Amino acid sequence: MPSTNFGEFELIARLTAQLPHADAVIHGVGDDAAVLDWLSGSQLAVTCDAQVERRHFLRDHATAEQIGRRALAVNLSDLAAMGAEPLFALVSLILPSDITADWLDELYCGLRVEAAEFDVSIVGGNIASTDGPLIVDITLLGRVARGKAVLRSGARAGDRVCVTGMLGSAAAGLISFLEPVEPGLSVIDPAIQQARESHRVPQPRVAQGSALAKSGLATAMIDISDGLAADLGHLCEQSAVGAVVEMAALPIASSTARIAAAYGRDPVELALFGGEDYELLFTVPPDKIEQALATVRAAGGTVHTIGWIIANDGEASPNMRLRLPDGSERSLPPRGWDHLRDTQT
Amino acid sequence: MPSTNFGEFELIARLTAQLPHADAVIHGVGDDAAVLDWLSGSQLAVTCDAQVERRHFLRDHATAEQIGRRALAVNLSDLAAMGAEPLFALVSLILPSDITADWLDELYCGLRVEAAEFDVSIVGGNIASTDGPLIVDITLLGRVARGKAVLRSGARAGDRVCVTGMLGSAAAGLISFLEPVEPGLSVIDPAIQQARESHRVPQPRVAQGSALAKSGLATAMIDISDGLAADLGHLCEQSAVGAVVEMAALPIASSTARIAAAYGRDPVELALFGGEDYELLFTVPPDKIEQALATVRAAGGTVHTIGWIIANDGEASPNMRLRLPDGSERSLPPRGWDHLRDTQT
Repeated sequence: MPSTNFGEFELIARLTAQLPHADAVIHGVGDDAAVLDWLSGSQLAVTCDAQVERRHFLRDHATAEQIGRRALAVNLSDLAAMGAEPLFALVSLILPSDITADWLDELYCGLRVEAAEFDVSIVGGNIASTDGPLIVDITLLGRVARGKAVLRSGARAGDRVCVTGMLGSAAAGLISFLEPVEPGLSVIDPAIQQARESHRVPQPRVAQGSALAKSGLATAMIDISDGLAADLGHLCEQSAVGAVVEMAALPIASSTARIAAAYGRDPVELALFGGEDYELLFTVPPDKIEQALATVRAAGGTVHTIGWIIANDGEASPNMRLRLPDGSERSLPPRGWDHLRDTQT
Repeated sequence: MPSTNFGEFELIARLTAQLPHADAVIHGVGDDAAVLDWLSGSQLAVTCDAQVERRHFLRDHATAEQIGRRALAVNLSDLAAMGAEPLFALVSLILPSDITADWLDELYCGLRVEAAEFDVSIVGGNIASTDGPLIVDITLLGRVARGKAVLRSGARAGDRVCVTGMLGSAAAGLISFLEPVEPGLSVIDPAIQQARESHRVPQPRVAQGSALAKSGLATAMIDISDGLAADLGHLCEQSAVGAVVEMAALPIASSTARIAAAYGRDPVELALFGGEDYELLFTVPPDKIEQALATVRAAGGTVHTIGWIIANDGEASPNMRLRLPDGSERSLPPRGWDHLRDTQT
């Protein structure tokens, strides 16, 4: 890594010098592995997600701090979708030679900020060099009370379908990065700023997911990374059910609607297929819906009921339908952003 | 991923369809996170290590199965160096577009073979695409009895320095890959085959590390990934001690000596600085050395005493010395392969 004049070991020492640790971290960074205390009675929840330059972020469009925050946030969102409480993170960096030590300091600053916000200890990691793109690959460990994890597979016909926050905002932000700013909008327009921020640093719904798991009210849960339709498709497939989504009930921010209008896009398309919202999508039996909505609101943030689960009548793929404001229905394909194809599929 | 015509989800389903699971895996691949049972009384040991194409392996010189086995083996070696028992692995794949589904099947075959050999369950992972090199990034979780993890920091003056297996063999294998085969050797020569196999698929010393941790005899332990001198340097630095290594005691396989001779290299240099041996380097108080050697041998494989720990007299960097057969000593620089510099530093 010529531009930094740091070797692997100096770099690890520099980046991890200021990491705060919870009491459960017996030995953190600096040995062959981290050693962590574990509370009996709870189960481990573990996930990993890699953010790859030019696939998930653009160094021109986000600061190193934002890239660091985002890399941890998408993993926090996965644990939130199980209802687990995040505890420990390992950070694996794959670094091209043009990355400077200052840039890495800033990346780690973002990781530390995000970790501190959610009481996560960064306990280990790895650094390797590459002749390819920058990659931030994070593994996140958390805990969930025994038997309380909310899986994708528990939705039943009649359950209501709910979603936290707003949909389509990250997709609107991505469009505003990739396409020239349209007349009628400005880069300093609050709508653009808000949408871009949604894309750069998602807000993982950790408290809401954990509250739902503790309440035992949700029958199934998933986070929206590929898009509402695609992730509802995963939930329906694993629960062997179908779903109806009410178009008029989709929560779409006015900033998203403004950007969509300026770029000639349909805001409903962004909400259904845009992806990277990192909101929680969950199902609740109809008699418990008010209690569930109150539980999520008490944990902070907004939540909306957007549809209901239907029987799938033995079909191989989920029967998913979009109900229009006039009461008519059309098929809702479970498609979204598939990172391997790098197209909406 | 045009060459496979698989999307991310089909690919994950295909690769993970045949994964066996231990009873402790409550929910494995297929949800937002894995959910794992945890025995009370033990501590978690967690490590991660990425294998990057053209930095750690060459697709021309190893099969997909060997690359898979190696990626897991280097992580198993890190847990072995803590004395931890490996349990669960997450596999993060970063895939260039020329990788075929058949190649990935073979990679996963290697992962499954290595996992089965060490009773590890593959419980999750991630797949992302890249325009850069292939990367296999693995996070490995294991357990170690409370307070029994063997750190790098416990070595004391007078302790004996021991190493499992043979040194320099992986470096000899790498040389035989990178340089034209010399007259006097043939690619089907057993020496070449043995050295190349050492480089392709290291043998992690899991049983030996675990036995040492349970015995409580080792004061410090590390695995040799960067090379004996470099990793002894890490151990000495964290223990605030120095060390003397006896050149005549270095365990060097006859195949390594033959390859070194054919390529005009010094086998001692390969043993000291070559790296990627993935043997265990550990220290033991002198009165417990026979018991420690017997413990490691009972767990399988060979072990040698190669030197002793000395006081560092308050120096900032470890005082490390190589004792020659004539009794004279010279400085042993704690250098080795540093992946970021991609040179021996």
